[in-house]
Amino acid sequence: MNPDSRTPPVGVPFDSDDPNNRCFGCSPDNEQGLRMAFVKTGCHAVEAHYEVAEHFCGAPQVVHGGIQATMLDEVLGFACRTAFADDDVDGLQIVTAEFSLRYRIPVPTGVQLLLRGEVERTEGRNIFVKGAILDDAERELTRGEARWVRLA
Amino acid sequence: MNPDSRTPPVGVPFDSDDPNNRCFGCSPDNEQGLRMAFVKTGCHAVEAHYEVAEHFCGAPQVVHGGIQATMLDEVLGFACRTAFADDDVDGLQIVTAEFSLRYRIPVPTGVQLLLRGEVERTEGRNIFVKGAILDDAERELTRGEARWVRLA
Repeated sequence: MNPDSRTPPVGVPFDSDDPNNRCFGCSPDNEQGLRMAFVKTGCHAVEAHYEVAEHFCGAPQVVHGGIQATMLDEVLGFACRTAFADDDVDGLQIVTAEFSLRYRIPVPTGVQLLLRGEVERTEGRNIFVKGAILDDAERELTRGEARWVRLA
Repeated sequence: MNPDSRTPPVGVPFDSDDPNNRCFGCSPDNEQGLRMAFVKTGCHAVEAHYEVAEHFCGAPQVVHGGIQATMLDEVLGFACRTAFADDDVDGLQIVTAEFSLRYRIPVPTGVQLLLRGEVERTEGRNIFVKGAILDDAERELTRGEARWVRLA
Protein backbone atom coordinates (compact mmCIF):
# COMPACT_ATOMS: atom_id res chain seq x y z
CA MET A 1 0.00 0.00 0.00
CA ASN A 2 1.06 3.53 -0.69
CA PRO A 3 1.20 5.17 2.77
CA ASP A 4 0.04 8.45 1.19
CA SER A 5 -3.10 6.91 -0.27
CA ARG A 6 -6.27 8.86 0.53
CA THR A 7 -8.46 5.81 0.10
CA PRO A 8 -8.14 3.20 2.83
CA PRO A 9 -9.34 -0.39 2.43
CA VAL A 10 -13.05 -1.01 2.92
CA GLY A 11 -13.92 -0.97 6.63
CA VAL A 12 -10.97 1.23 7.56
CA PRO A 13 -11.15 4.90 8.65
CA PHE A 14 -9.58 7.59 6.52
CA ASP A 15 -6.28 8.94 7.81
CA SER A 16 -6.66 12.09 9.85
CA ASP A 17 -3.07 12.80 10.81
CA ASP A 18 -2.27 15.49 8.24
CA PRO A 19 -0.86 18.36 10.34
CA ASN A 20 -1.93 20.89 7.68
CA ASN A 21 -5.58 19.91 7.94
CA ARG A 22 -7.44 22.62 9.88
CA CYS A 23 -10.77 21.93 8.18
CA PHE A 24 -13.88 22.96 10.13
CA GLY A 25 -15.51 19.68 9.13
CA CYS A 26 -12.87 16.98 9.56
CA SER A 27 -9.71 18.23 11.26
CA PRO A 28 -9.22 16.43 14.58
CA ASP A 29 -7.18 19.47 15.66
CA ASN A 30 -9.81 22.18 15.02
CA GLU A 31 -11.44 22.40 18.42
CA GLN A 32 -14.17 24.71 17.12
CA GLY A 33 -14.97 22.35 14.26
CA LEU A 34 -17.13 19.27 13.84
CA ARG A 35 -14.15 16.86 13.93
CA MET A 36 -15.96 14.31 11.83
CA ALA A 37 -14.25 11.02 10.91
CA PHE A 38 -15.13 8.78 7.98
CA VAL A 39 -14.89 5.10 7.18
CA LYS A 40 -14.77 3.58 3.74
CA THR A 41 -17.69 1.18 3.55
CA GLY A 42 -17.60 0.15 -0.09
CA CYS A 43 -15.57 0.59 -3.22
CA HIS A 44 -17.02 4.09 -3.73
CA ALA A 45 -18.93 4.63 -0.49
CA VAL A 46 -18.19 6.15 2.90
CA GLU A 47 -19.99 6.59 6.23
CA ALA A 48 -19.75 8.49 9.48
CA HIS A 49 -21.55 8.32 12.79
CA TYR A 50 -21.93 11.73 14.35
CA GLU A 51 -23.79 13.50 17.14
CA VAL A 52 -24.22 17.25 16.69
CA ALA A 53 -23.66 19.56 19.68
CA GLU A 54 -26.47 21.96 20.58
CA HIS A 55 -24.42 25.08 19.76
CA PHE A 56 -24.72 24.06 16.10
CA CYS A 57 -28.51 24.44 16.19
CA GLY A 58 -30.75 26.68 14.11
CA ALA A 59 -34.06 26.41 15.95
CA PRO A 60 -33.51 24.91 19.41
CA GLN A 61 -32.68 21.16 19.30
CA VAL A 62 -32.57 21.17 15.49
CA VAL A 63 -29.28 21.07 13.57
CA HIS A 64 -28.78 24.27 11.55
CA GLY A 65 -29.41 23.75 7.82
CA GLY A 66 -25.92 25.07 7.10
CA ILE A 67 -24.31 22.63 9.53
CA GLN A 68 -26.29 19.84 7.83
CA ALA A 69 -24.79 21.12 4.58
CA THR A 70 -21.34 21.03 6.17
CA MET A 71 -21.83 17.42 7.26
CA LEU A 72 -23.06 16.40 3.82
CA ASP A 73 -20.30 18.36 2.06
CA GLU A 74 -17.82 16.39 4.18
CA VAL A 75 -19.28 12.96 3.52
CA LEU A 76 -19.60 13.71 -0.19
CA GLY A 77 -16.01 15.00 -0.29
CA PHE A 78 -14.70 11.84 1.32
CA ALA A 79 -16.81 9.78 -1.08
CA CYS A 80 -15.19 11.68 -3.96
CA ARG A 81 -11.77 10.54 -2.86
CA THR A 82 -12.79 6.95 -3.50
CA ALA A 83 -13.30 7.78 -7.17
CA PHE A 84 -9.54 7.74 -7.77
CA ALA A 85 -7.05 4.91 -7.88
CA ASP A 86 -4.42 4.79 -5.15
CA ASP A 87 -1.68 5.55 -7.67
CA ASP A 88 -3.52 8.68 -8.84
CA VAL A 89 -4.03 10.69 -5.66
CA ASP A 90 -0.70 12.44 -5.14
CA GLY A 91 -1.49 16.12 -4.69
CA LEU A 92 -5.19 15.48 -5.24
CA GLN A 93 -7.25 18.69 -5.09
CA ILE A 94 -11.03 18.49 -5.33
CA VAL A 95 -13.64 21.18 -4.69
CA THR A 96 -17.41 21.40 -4.54
CA ALA A 97 -18.86 23.05 -7.66
CA GLU A 98 -22.62 22.48 -7.29
CA PHE A 99 -24.52 21.23 -4.28
CA SER A 100 -28.24 20.61 -3.77
CA LEU A 101 -29.98 19.71 -0.56
CA ARG A 102 -33.45 18.47 0.24
CA TYR A 103 -34.45 18.95 3.88
CA ARG A 104 -37.16 16.36 4.55
CA ILE A 105 -37.34 15.88 8.32
CA PRO A 106 -35.77 18.08 11.04
CA VAL A 107 -32.37 16.72 12.13
CA PRO A 108 -32.09 16.67 15.94
CA THR A 109 -29.03 17.74 17.89
CA GLY A 110 -27.73 15.45 20.63
CA VAL A 111 -28.54 12.11 19.02
CA GLN A 112 -26.43 9.69 17.05
CA LEU A 113 -26.80 10.27 13.30
CA LEU A 114 -25.56 8.29 10.33
CA LEU A 115 -24.09 9.93 7.25
CA ARG A 116 -23.66 8.10 3.99
CA GLY A 117 -22.04 9.23 0.77
CA GLU A 118 -21.29 7.50 -2.51
CA VAL A 119 -19.96 8.22 -5.97
CA GLU A 120 -22.59 8.05 -8.67
CA ARG A 121 -20.32 8.58 -11.67
CA THR A 122 -17.36 10.53 -12.99
CA GLU A 123 -17.22 12.53 -16.24
CA GLY A 124 -13.79 13.88 -17.04
CA ARG A 125 -12.79 16.10 -14.11
CA ASN A 126 -16.31 15.98 -12.63
CA ILE A 127 -17.31 13.66 -9.80
CA PHE A 128 -21.05 13.26 -9.16
CA VAL A 129 -21.86 12.19 -5.61
CA LYS A 130 -24.93 11.75 -3.46
CA GLY A 131 -25.58 11.11 0.20
CA ALA A 132 -27.83 11.59 3.16
CA ILE A 133 -28.18 12.23 6.86
CA LEU A 134 -30.15 9.38 8.46
CA ASP A 135 -31.47 8.70 11.94
CA ASP A 136 -30.80 5.53 13.93
CA ALA A 137 -33.66 3.76 12.13
CA GLU A 138 -31.92 4.70 8.85
CA ARG A 139 -34.74 7.04 7.93
CA GLU A 140 -33.55 9.70 5.49
CA LEU A 141 -33.73 13.15 7.10
CA THR A 142 -31.79 15.29 4.64
CA ARG A 143 -30.49 14.35 1.21
CA GLY A 144 -27.65 15.91 -0.73
CA GLU A 145 -26.31 15.69 -4.26
CA ALA A 146 -23.23 17.41 -5.59
CA ARG A 147 -20.87 17.84 -8.46
CA TRP A 148 -17.25 18.09 -7.40
CA VAL A 149 -14.37 19.03 -9.69
CA ARG A 150 -10.82 17.76 -9.63
CA LEU A 151 -8.39 20.68 -9.91
CA ALA A 152 -5.15 18.70 -9.52
CA MET B 1 -45.08 49.79 14.38
CA ASN B 2 -45.67 46.44 15.98
CA PRO B 3 -42.70 45.96 18.34
CA ASP B 4 -42.77 42.21 17.61
CA SER B 5 -42.46 42.67 13.88
CA ARG B 6 -39.70 40.59 12.29
CA THR B 7 -39.32 43.02 9.39
CA PRO B 8 -37.71 46.34 10.22
CA PRO B 9 -37.97 49.40 7.97
CA VAL B 10 -35.58 49.52 5.02
CA GLY B 11 -32.07 50.45 6.19
CA VAL B 12 -32.62 49.15 9.71
CA PRO B 13 -31.04 45.98 11.21
CA PHE B 14 -33.22 43.07 12.23
CA ASP B 15 -33.79 42.73 15.96
CA SER B 16 -31.43 40.28 17.61
CA ASP B 17 -32.55 40.49 21.23
CA ASP B 18 -34.65 37.32 21.38
CA PRO B 19 -33.27 35.50 24.44
CA ASN B 20 -34.43 32.15 22.99
CA ASN B 21 -32.32 32.54 19.87
CA ARG B 22 -29.27 30.28 20.14
CA CYS B 23 -28.90 29.89 16.37
CA PHE B 24 -25.40 29.00 15.14
CA GLY B 25 -25.81 31.52 12.36
CA CYS B 26 -27.37 34.61 13.90
CA SER B 27 -27.57 34.46 17.68
CA PRO B 28 -25.45 37.23 19.20
CA ASP B 29 -25.23 35.02 22.31
CA ASN B 30 -23.84 31.85 20.66
CA GLU B 31 -20.11 32.40 21.13
CA GLN B 32 -19.26 29.40 18.94
CA GLY B 33 -21.52 30.63 16.15
CA LEU B 34 -21.15 33.06 13.28
CA ARG B 35 -23.14 35.84 15.02
CA MET B 36 -24.25 37.32 11.72
CA ALA B 37 -26.47 40.41 11.67
CA PHE B 38 -28.72 41.50 8.82
CA VAL B 39 -30.11 44.76 7.51
CA LYS B 40 -33.22 45.16 5.41
CA THR B 41 -32.10 46.91 2.22
CA GLY B 42 -35.28 46.80 0.16
CA CYS B 43 -38.88 45.77 0.36
CA HIS B 44 -37.93 42.09 -0.03
CA ALA B 45 -34.13 42.26 0.22
CA VAL B 46 -31.54 41.95 2.99
CA GLU B 47 -27.77 42.26 3.32
CA ALA B 48 -24.96 41.47 5.73
CA HIS B 49 -21.29 42.34 5.87
CA TYR B 50 -19.26 39.54 7.37
CA GLU B 51 -15.67 38.41 7.80
CA VAL B 52 -15.17 34.67 8.34
CA ALA B 53 -12.70 33.49 11.00
CA GLU B 54 -10.00 31.04 9.89
CA HIS B 55 -11.30 28.20 12.07
CA PHE B 56 -14.28 28.01 9.68
CA CYS B 57 -12.01 27.06 6.75
CA GLY B 58 -12.08 23.97 4.56
CA ALA B 59 -8.77 24.24 2.73
CA PRO B 60 -6.51 26.78 4.47
CA GLN B 61 -7.68 30.40 3.96
CA VAL B 62 -10.84 29.27 2.15
CA VAL B 63 -14.26 29.32 3.82
CA HIS B 64 -15.67 25.80 4.16
CA GLY B 65 -18.40 25.07 1.63
CA GLY B 66 -20.73 24.17 4.48
CA ILE B 67 -20.06 27.45 6.27
CA GLN B 68 -20.79 29.25 3.00
CA ALA B 69 -24.06 27.30 2.95
CA THR B 70 -24.73 28.42 6.52
CA MET B 71 -24.15 32.07 5.60
CA LEU B 72 -26.42 31.79 2.57
CA ASP B 73 -29.07 29.88 4.52
CA GLU B 74 -29.07 32.76 7.00
CA VAL B 75 -29.33 35.56 4.44
CA LEU B 76 -32.04 33.70 2.56
CA GLY B 77 -33.92 33.03 5.79
CA PHE B 78 -33.88 36.70 6.73
CA ALA B 79 -34.96 37.58 3.19
CA CYS B 80 -37.92 35.18 3.64
CA ARG B 81 -39.12 37.15 6.62
CA THR B 82 -39.64 40.17 4.40
CA ALA B 83 -42.20 38.19 2.40
CA PHE B 84 -44.80 38.65 5.13
CA ALA B 85 -46.75 41.67 6.25
CA ASP B 86 -46.04 43.03 9.71
CA ASP B 87 -49.49 42.01 10.90
CA ASP B 88 -48.90 38.42 9.75
CA VAL B 89 -45.70 37.39 11.53
CA ASP B 90 -46.88 36.45 15.03
CA GLY B 91 -45.49 32.98 15.69
CA LEU B 92 -43.95 32.84 12.23
CA GLN B 93 -42.15 29.53 11.59
CA ILE B 94 -40.27 29.02 8.35
CA VAL B 95 -37.83 26.28 7.35
CA THR B 96 -35.56 25.50 4.43
CA ALA B 97 -37.02 22.79 2.18
CA GLU B 98 -34.69 22.83 -0.85
CA PHE B 99 -31.37 24.60 -1.25
CA SER B 100 -28.97 24.74 -4.20
CA LEU B 101 -25.52 26.27 -4.26
CA ARG B 102 -23.13 27.10 -7.05
CA TYR B 103 -19.54 27.58 -5.89
CA ARG B 104 -17.90 29.78 -8.52
CA ILE B 105 -14.80 31.34 -6.91
CA PRO B 106 -13.13 30.33 -3.62
CA VAL B 107 -14.39 32.48 -0.72
CA PRO B 108 -11.46 33.72 1.41
CA THR B 109 -11.42 33.79 5.20
CA GLY B 110 -10.30 36.98 6.94
CA VAL B 111 -11.69 39.51 4.47
CA GLN B 112 -14.87 41.54 4.46
CA LEU B 113 -17.60 39.80 2.46
CA LEU B 114 -21.03 40.98 1.38
CA LEU B 115 -24.10 38.75 1.51
CA ARG B 116 -27.29 39.56 -0.33
CA GLY B 117 -30.62 37.80 -0.28
CA GLU B 118 -33.98 38.57 -1.83
CA VAL B 119 -37.42 37.07 -2.29
CA GLU B 120 -38.16 35.97 -5.83
CA ARG B 121 -41.77 34.96 -5.34
CA THR B 122 -44.19 33.20 -3.03
CA GLU B 123 -46.57 30.38 -3.94
CA GLY B 124 -48.94 29.42 -1.15
CA ARG B 125 -46.77 28.36 1.80
CA ASN B 126 -43.62 28.36 -0.36
CA ILE B 127 -41.14 31.23 -0.44
CA PHE B 128 -38.58 31.19 -3.27
CA VAL B 129 -35.42 33.14 -2.46
CA LYS B 130 -32.01 33.69 -4.01
CA GLY B 131 -28.79 35.29 -2.89
CA ALA B 132 -25.02 35.36 -3.09
CA ILE B 133 -21.74 35.81 -1.31
CA LEU B 134 -19.80 38.65 -2.95
CA ASP B 135 -16.34 40.12 -2.48
CA ASP B 136 -15.61 43.81 -1.89
CA ALA B 137 -15.75 44.46 -5.63
CA GLU B 138 -19.25 42.88 -5.60
CA ARG B 139 -18.01 39.94 -7.64
CA GLU B 140 -20.25 36.90 -7.11
CA LEU B 141 -18.27 34.12 -5.42
CA THR B 142 -21.02 31.69 -4.44
CA ARG B 143 -24.67 31.75 -5.41
CA GLY B 144 -27.60 30.16 -3.60
CA GLU B 145 -31.25 29.53 -4.34
CA ALA B 146 -33.77 28.01 -2.00
CA ARG B 147 -37.36 27.13 -1.40
CA TRP B 148 -38.50 27.78 2.14
CA VAL B 149 -41.82 26.67 3.62
CA ARG B 150 -43.97 28.46 6.15
CA LEU B 151 -45.10 26.04 8.85
CA ALA B 152 -46.89 28.52 11.08
